[in-house]
Amino acid sequence: LTFRLKILGANSAAPAFNRNQTSQVLQAGSVNFLIDCGEGTQLRIAKSGVKINKIDHILISHLHGDHFFGLVGLLSTMHLFGRDKALNIYCPSPLQEIIDLQFKYSDTRLNFPVNYLFTDKTNDDLIFENKEITVNKFLLDHSIFCTGFLFREKPGKRKIIPGKIPAGLSIPDMLKLKEGLDITNDEGEVIYKNSEYTFSPKKPISYAYCSDTKYDESIIDIIQGVDLLYHEATFGNDMSDRATETFHSTAQQAAEIAKKANAGKLLIGHYSVRYRELAPLLEEARNIFPNSDLAIEGETYDLEIKTVDA
Amino acid sequence: LTFRLKILGANSAAPAFNRNQTSQVLQAGSVNFLIDCGEGTQLRIAKSGVKINKIDHILISHLHGDHFFGLVGLLSTMHLFGRDKALNIYCPSPLQEIIDLQFKYSDTRLNFPVNYLFTDKTNDDLIFENKEITVNKFLLDHSIFCTGFLFREKPGKRKIIPGKIPAGLSIPDMLKLKEGLDITNDEGEVIYKNSEYTFSPKKPISYAYCSDTKYDESIIDIIQGVDLLYHEATFGNDMSDRATETFHSTAQQAAEIAKKANAGKLLIGHYSVRYRELAPLLEEARNIFPNSDLAIEGETYDLEIKTVDA
Repeated sequence: LTFRLKILGANSAAPAFNRNQTSQVLQAGSVNFLIDCGEGTQLRIAKSGVKINKIDHILISHLHGDHFFGLVGLLSTMHLFGRDKALNIYCPSPLQEIIDLQFKYSDTRLNFPVNYLFTDKTNDDLIFENKEITVNKFLLDHSIFCTGFLFREKPGKRKIIPGKIPAGLSIPDMLKLKEGLDITNDEGEVIYKNSEYTFSPKKPISYAYCSDTKYDESIIDIIQGVDLLYHEATFGNDMSDRATETFHSTAQQAAEIAKKANAGKLLIGHYSVRYRELAPLLEEARNIFPNSDLAIEGETYDLEIKTVDA
Repeated sequence: LTFRLKILGANSAAPAFNRNQTSQVLQAGSVNFLIDCGEGTQLRIAKSGVKINKIDHILISHLHGDHFFGLVGLLSTMHLFGRDKALNIYCPSPLQEIIDLQFKYSDTRLNFPVNYLFTDKTNDDLIFENKEITVNKFLLDHSIFCTGFLFREKPGKRKIIPGKIPAGLSIPDMLKLKEGLDITNDEGEVIYKNSEYTFSPKKPISYAYCSDTKYDESIIDIIQGVDLLYHEATFGNDMSDRATETFHSTAQQAAEIAKKANAGKLLIGHYSVRYRELAPLLEEARNIFPNSDLAIEGETYDLEIKTVDA
């Protein structure tokens, strides 16, 4: 499995300096997740090479316009381009009312079903699962209800540690060990403890998305050890009061979260329109967490699969 | 006075071939009118060189998304960029509900007042007037309620025909003649009939905008003699059945309207996403009405002032 993240926009409230509002596509195996959908996202999906009707899941973190104003236009275009399969939208519940109202007055009936799956105030709960991955949403601390999303590859089959295959192990028991189960005898006693005979050949990959939030340590346990963390960094640290006031973070704060969560890599984004140059934000983050980068519209970030030797 | 029309988008339902959905700016003297506002219009206003907070009047023809999905984002950006003066929006009444709902859930209170001036089913009525111009709206024949807009320069002061100044004409009477009034004696009898002594030094300029409509001769009287007519031409004439079904026009039909209305010039637009090449639509229009052109995103069309000799 690979995770490929395409940044479609990483600016905050308004477009500026050729940077557009927030949107990303995460390609996780064969599934494309569209994460947030600022105005004009459909144009940037087209540029990215992702076919809009290959997107079956849209996740909206919250109802500030820079995260969803492009959704109604995207749905219209999916309709115009002949979509008939269902689309799943994970979002705060009022979004359905907003979309429905616009289609009511334009007398539009979409040719495809839209399943709205409303996010609620439960923290760190599963919202999507297939054979290969899970997606959890978790609560962020923003001025309105807002959630982040954590995408995790499921652990793969375990491998038997070379030289450790017990003599006379039956094929069914071998398969059980690979599934991660212990082998017991008829009395229910463990005769081969899984962890002593197997190892996981790879570390499952994971990606966490924190769209709009003030500095909030309560997310650290949830995203602990994530391979890639996208965390908003609307301001530089000289604006930390303004960040707190507006329920946003500074680049330094994003980096502190990445460090405390032992993230593999940090991408910052959601830049204020006040910043023409982003290098100072990056430098600020790298001072705390060296493996930081800027989320740049149009760029692709691949999550490497880490294989583990026994 | 000059009229300067900037095309911000001239495609129909979806963006395609680097063409975006409908929007225009008409600069009429010192007033900027934004006419329709498809998704991403704010980006194209910025490109056009028009300052968004120099737009005080927005006219929305109807509530199909390709004509208004960019409005809520534009209002958000006007707010972010510090607007405090009132904005007037001329539109079908449900648009206010659509905009208000989005700002309600994003907990946004705009820093500036928005005056909604709802269009209704009255035909050819005045919706805007200042010293120099008038704007009338008129009804179009589309699948949902839709209006066109007619922008007209007011007639300027009249001039006395050289050699015709009556001997002994007083200054106050001279000014009356220039205002277009007849001069009467104390008994109320006309002694100098205005039309015999004066002429209009120029033909007032005018621009008519017909966003989405099927072929409809009822507009011809209203737009008669207009200098520049923008008329939708969603399809070519081979698709005339489809045009009728969807309440749209073909390029040939747009040209027939221009011809019957004795327009000075025709601009066609609102191209279907099926057309990569627009030249066949233009050729079709020119076969009927030679002074036809394509509305091209990013281009500017100046309306010439015609001076008239006595």
